[in-house]
Amino acid sequence: MKMEPKKSILPNQYLIIGFCSIITLGSFLLFLPISQRSGIHIHYLDALFTSASAVCVTGLVTLDVAATFNLFGRTVIALLILLGGLGFASFVMSFSMLLGWNIGISKRSVVREAYNLGSLKGTLQVVKTVTYASLIFEVGGTLIEFFIFRKTYPPLQALGHAAFNAISAFNNAGFDLMGGYRSLTGFRGNILMNLTTALLIIIGGTGFFVLSDIARNRRWKKLSMHSRIVILMNLALIVTGTLGIIILEHTDLLSSFFQSVTARTAGFNTIDIGKMSEPGQFLMMVLMFIGASPGSTGGGIKTTTTFAMIISLGSMIFRREPAVFQRRISNESILKAFQVFLLALLVVILGVFLIAVSEAGRFSFLQISFEGVSAFATVGLSTGITPFLGSFSKVVLMIIMFIGRLGPFTIASSLRARESVLKYVEEQVFIG
Amino acid sequence: MKMEPKKSILPNQYLIIGFCSIITLGSFLLFLPISQRSGIHIHYLDALFTSASAVCVTGLVTLDVAATFNLFGRTVIALLILLGGLGFASFVMSFSMLLGWNIGISKRSVVREAYNLGSLKGTLQVVKTVTYASLIFEVGGTLIEFFIFRKTYPPLQALGHAAFNAISAFNNAGFDLMGGYRSLTGFRGNILMNLTTALLIIIGGTGFFVLSDIARNRRWKKLSMHSRIVILMNLALIVTGTLGIIILEHTDLLSSFFQSVTARTAGFNTIDIGKMSEPGQFLMMVLMFIGASPGSTGGGIKTTTTFAMIISLGSMIFRREPAVFQRRISNESILKAFQVFLLALLVVILGVFLIAVSEAGRFSFLQISFEGVSAFATVGLSTGITPFLGSFSKVVLMIIMFIGRLGPFTIASSLRARESVLKYVEEQVFIG
Ligand SMILES: [K+]
Ligand SMILES: [K+]
Repeated sequence: MKMEPKKSILPNQYLIIGFCSIITLGSFLLFLPISQRSGIHIHYLDALFTSASAVCVTGLVTLDVAATFNLFGRTVIALLILLGGLGFASFVMSFSMLLGWNIGISKRSVVREAYNLGSLKGTLQVVKTVTYASLIFEVGGTLIEFFIFRKTYPPLQALGHAAFNAISAFNNAGFDLMGGYRSLTGFRGNILMNLTTALLIIIGGTGFFVLSDIARNRRWKKLSMHSRIVILMNLALIVTGTLGIIILEHTDLLSSFFQSVTARTAGFNTIDIGKMSEPGQFLMMVLMFIGASPGSTGGGIKTTTTFAMIISLGSMIFRREPAVFQRRISNESILKAFQVFLLALLVVILGVFLIAVSEAGRFSFLQISFEGVSAFATVGLSTGITPFLGSFSKVVLMIIMFIGRLGPFTIASSLRARESVLKYVEEQVFIG
Repeated sequence: MKMEPKKSILPNQYLIIGFCSIITLGSFLLFLPISQRSGIHIHYLDALFTSASAVCVTGLVTLDVAATFNLFGRTVIALLILLGGLGFASFVMSFSMLLGWNIGISKRSVVREAYNLGSLKGTLQVVKTVTYASLIFEVGGTLIEFFIFRKTYPPLQALGHAAFNAISAFNNAGFDLMGGYRSLTGFRGNILMNLTTALLIIIGGTGFFVLSDIARNRRWKKLSMHSRIVILMNLALIVTGTLGIIILEHTDLLSSFFQSVTARTAGFNTIDIGKMSEPGQFLMMVLMFIGASPGSTGGGIKTTTTFAMIISLGSMIFRREPAVFQRRISNESILKAFQVFLLALLVVILGVFLIAVSEAGRFSFLQISFEGVSAFATVGLSTGITPFLGSFSKVVLMIIMFIGRLGPFTIASSLRARESVLKYVEEQVFIG
């Protein structure tokens, strides 16, 4: 096969094939009667949707997970979330390491694509850090939440709920096991529960670069521009979101804070999203669309992408360099940010448009847009319409989730391997 | 005053002040009883809105123009459209030329900003061409439409309707004088009326660069990249829009074609927009948002802006240069395109959000978004809710129209005159 090296499989294509395989495998397992409670029969499409939603750590559901799946089924879902959250590639890498396999360049570049790393160097170290850190936070979260669930459930069940919830939070999966699409609405006033979950979500969504940067350098001045931007954007978005929800929905501080955190991109809810006002839902959509930070378990176009675009706009308006913290953001970064943004917007708009046409007025455009953005940013918040969508719409949502999880950029750049070398003369176009 | 040259008024600021002055003057004239039919009393805000809508060649209305204003009032509106359509700056220039005034650099750069010209050279020539060409097309259109209106109206009234309609079409104003918010719904089946109006709209929206390029070079191969892109995008958008409307709304070819043309950005309608399906309305919003071409009477983010972004996305996906017609589109053009797009999106989103909050659920988010996009792209199509909006919402719509007409870029860059000279070290940010 060395005769045509240009036709070898690209790292991106490995990733796509890997995710697809796991989703398919998961769907088979969930479709088997051993995964379901007795007396329950589900369509294969719903098993597929559940598997895709779990692997893409989204949490959108077409059925009531708690009422449909038994302990085995829910364990399968938890494993699918773990696989999806750590990232398929990262999982393969850790597995290989455990078995002492020799890891070649080609496999390392799979991880590079999965985490959008700039270089191959240190990739192995990243995978180790990712795996250990994840485990520590997940175990810690499980312990704290165990004591909360212990008040209502017998020990084993409480441990199960706590573990599922902690994994779900840290991996920004937001899967709802409470039953009746309740998510965490039952814990709305529980400060410890809200803060633990929010903390797991924030740490999981910050991205491992930033976490290891903080662990290594400890001081603001020593942090990279990337880390500072991520921290700044996190603060700004959480505060803006919290205030916005308080003003629009007249909710208390804790619920608003929790909802602001979870919109990017965990997808738990303590407030009934379907009952929010349209501007409130729209605010949630903006938060969801922006999402978490690069190299994290979260989705969306990412905080840094948003920041780069804002800086670029500011530089245009105030006629200065696109700089922050005495550093200029490279033109390539800015251009890539705009490309990611537009591509994401096009994916969501096309998907929402197709669903709206196929549902023929059964749901409002805003409701459908909400589910579309939620799917793309792998958030999983819902106005409650997803279980009632037609098969075509469910398939579209699944595709949006898939593209959103792997990143439209990853999918798009898997189409062609090599750069074109043609060079043309430049010419101006009048813009705007 | 030569002591502080850096504090002199920028061309952009001239433009803004000029537009504001004309809008204010128009609002006073329209508010006076001599402009209104007997027995009519209007709020000043509605007079201001009508004047702003006319000067910004939008055509959104908060009242029934035909039922409110008498011949004098309607003539004022027609003049305001003419002023707004030719562009305030261009008008000042032509006026100066007629009187043989000497035109200095500072005044010429006003025209440059108004038409987003790349250089000062040939600006005078452009103004002449613009003025003469406009007159020729407007007179031609008036003649043809006179014979159509002559069938229903007495000669003088027919001439008035024909002139108003031709001016309105060529300047992409789309103002509705038929009464009862009917626009051209009464002429839905009239082929000559539809084609004449569509042609005036297309020519008016193509932009004078392209028109003079065609007049000078006559052959496709000799046209500039800019002109070819404009022609290509016009065709693509008209065809896509027509097919989309036929499929979504099951309308006939003529109505669909007309509605597709007029969405960018004339704003006439032969179909009742409020009765279209939500996907149909959304398609119209996309067409409106893209709008006409640079240097034209139309609004929106412009065909070339859209094209530059599409090419940039394509170049990213297929890993090649952002080139078309064997010419590379400059990185500056592409970056400016994305900036214009994002700024436009932010203006519309912020405006729609404010209106949605202030209307507190009286209208759906899609309806409000439709009016917001329509205002921004100075289209003037409406789902019919504008007359029923609260005062705050009307003010927001007016501001959106104003920003949309002058271009968010023009307004933004009027904030600061000089480039900052600080240079920073570049650093990478992880994107997407
Ligand atoms: K999620
Ligand atoms: K218009």
